[in-house]
Amino acid sequence: MLTQTIQLWDGRDDARVECYVLYDSPEFQTGARRPAVVICPGGAYLGTSDREAEPVALRFAAAGYHAFVLRYTTYFKERITDWRQLPPPNERSAFPRPLFDLAKTMALVRSRAEEWRVDAGRIAVAGFSAGGHLAASLGVHWHEPFLNEALGEDNESFRPNALILGYPVLDNRLMRDEAIRAQDERKAGLFRLYSQAVFGVPDPADEQLAARSPALHVSGRTPPAFIWHTADDELVSAQNALNFALACARNNVPYELHVFASGVHGLSLGDETTASGPEHVNPEAAAWFQLALNWLKKYMS
Amino acid sequence: MLTQTIQLWDGRDDARVECYVLYDSPEFQTGARRPAVVICPGGAYLGTSDREAEPVALRFAAAGYHAFVLRYTTYFKERITDWRQLPPPNERSAFPRPLFDLAKTMALVRSRAEEWRVDAGRIAVAGFSAGGHLAASLGVHWHEPFLNEALGEDNESFRPNALILGYPVLDNRLMRDEAIRAQDERKAGLFRLYSQAVFGVPDPADEQLAARSPALHVSGRTPPAFIWHTADDELVSAQNALNFALACARNNVPYELHVFASGVHGLSLGDETTASGPEHVNPEAAAWFQLALNWLKKYMS
Repeated sequence: MLTQTIQLWDGRDDARVECYVLYDSPEFQTGARRPAVVICPGGAYLGTSDREAEPVALRFAAAGYHAFVLRYTTYFKERITDWRQLPPPNERSAFPRPLFDLAKTMALVRSRAEEWRVDAGRIAVAGFSAGGHLAASLGVHWHEPFLNEALGEDNESFRPNALILGYPVLDNRLMRDEAIRAQDERKAGLFRLYSQAVFGVPDPADEQLAARSPALHVSGRTPPAFIWHTADDELVSAQNALNFALACARNNVPYELHVFASGVHGLSLGDETTASGPEHVNPEAAAWFQLALNWLKKYMS
Repeated sequence: MLTQTIQLWDGRDDARVECYVLYDSPEFQTGARRPAVVICPGGAYLGTSDREAEPVALRFAAAGYHAFVLRYTTYFKERITDWRQLPPPNERSAFPRPLFDLAKTMALVRSRAEEWRVDAGRIAVAGFSAGGHLAASLGVHWHEPFLNEALGEDNESFRPNALILGYPVLDNRLMRDEAIRAQDERKAGLFRLYSQAVFGVPDPADEQLAARSPALHVSGRTPPAFIWHTADDELVSAQNALNFALACARNNVPYELHVFASGVHGLSLGDETTASGPEHVNPEAAAWFQLALNWLKKYMS
């Protein structure tokens, strides 16, 4: 496996792609084009979580996928170590910046398809939590002119061939309403900070929230989607997943949905390889990964 | 195992319970109270399908559950062999008759709990398609006075401790709208016949449809629910399951939901034991049964 980190934009180091490219072997599958996955870790657009990065990439790589972890632009460049003393913010992190990062990554992987032996027609985007929001945002907007205009590449180069969405944020109006209803200052504060990161303001208007809600923009051009969540996720409710699945159903977008009965937000792989505490070990929900691999084999298109 | 068929009502042979009661053994678990499951096969309330009856009961029995297949009142008593020559209808099949059958079955199993060694606090109701509608109807209405008034038993005796719903009908307004939208005379005709069976009329009003839509009646008293469906079910859309799951989420009812990407309506166990054709063998969706057993162990309450 070749590992390397690629800086996405000249003169800016706040968006990087960590590449895990499988070697081509003269002994088996010689010259074969392998499918790929671009992974968007979560982190409320304040940072990107290592728990949803390398371990996930390695699991996909072990299953025969070239894997790419996108460290997209977030509100903080540095790791948050003390929530009372936040690092200096990146005021230019707001959308569509992270979406440009992801679209550019897709085009980058496709442009290197020959060299890396990537099957350019089988590139999935997987995202967790806020990274699921980013993945789904590309899924619903990849064909729109603003991306072509900003990046100067054909929209087809941005197209994800499948979406894998883990406990994703898909409806920002729902997120806002739930943050208000919870009457929990910590949750409300986090939503304000997340809003600052995504919208550039702490209290976005209804139309702004709707414009950045992938569940409201599903269309016939949205790729097949595999979605998983836990029913008692207290940070990002499973209604996000249910609303997106309903939109897929209405638009005849093939989808698969698994809402497991129980599990904290941020399970990642749900086993010891990504656990930072016992609550992250969840054998029932950990089934998602094999289900997703099986699904990709049949439905990525 | 003791097998016997019990006629539910004196003087009427159109509702029966087929019992699969596990023997108590002096060698192991002696005297232990086992959980039970009451199974409602589907069949559009026109009949009850054998494919969703004994094989399902045996699978549960093999997992240590007493199993009971309810042959509830349906519009036809005889098996339909020729759709152009339907058998004579049972004009008294309309709701709440089938719901009375199911409530009575729950009370019956609880009344025999000592004799059969049933754990009266762990009795699940499993239903498929129209049987899923019936199971969910008990789930949302078990505590209401009309059942107590009709059957003369305490409402607690009707309470299901968990619901297992396979490709269930849960929203009859949705079913009506989809039957109209499909512009398929066969589908529209089947919905009229189903409506005749459930409502006693072929074209029920909006309020009648809503009154018999479990997705619209979920409350804090609804038991935990495990729901599964296939995303491309053309007869009963997966939106039925999604709407019910959303209602569970809004009412804090624990639930688990699996919408598999693909599969025809009526998969039952999804393997050779219940297949009447190759389309009924579906290894992906067949995973539902083990998922349901794991879920029951943790969430039936």
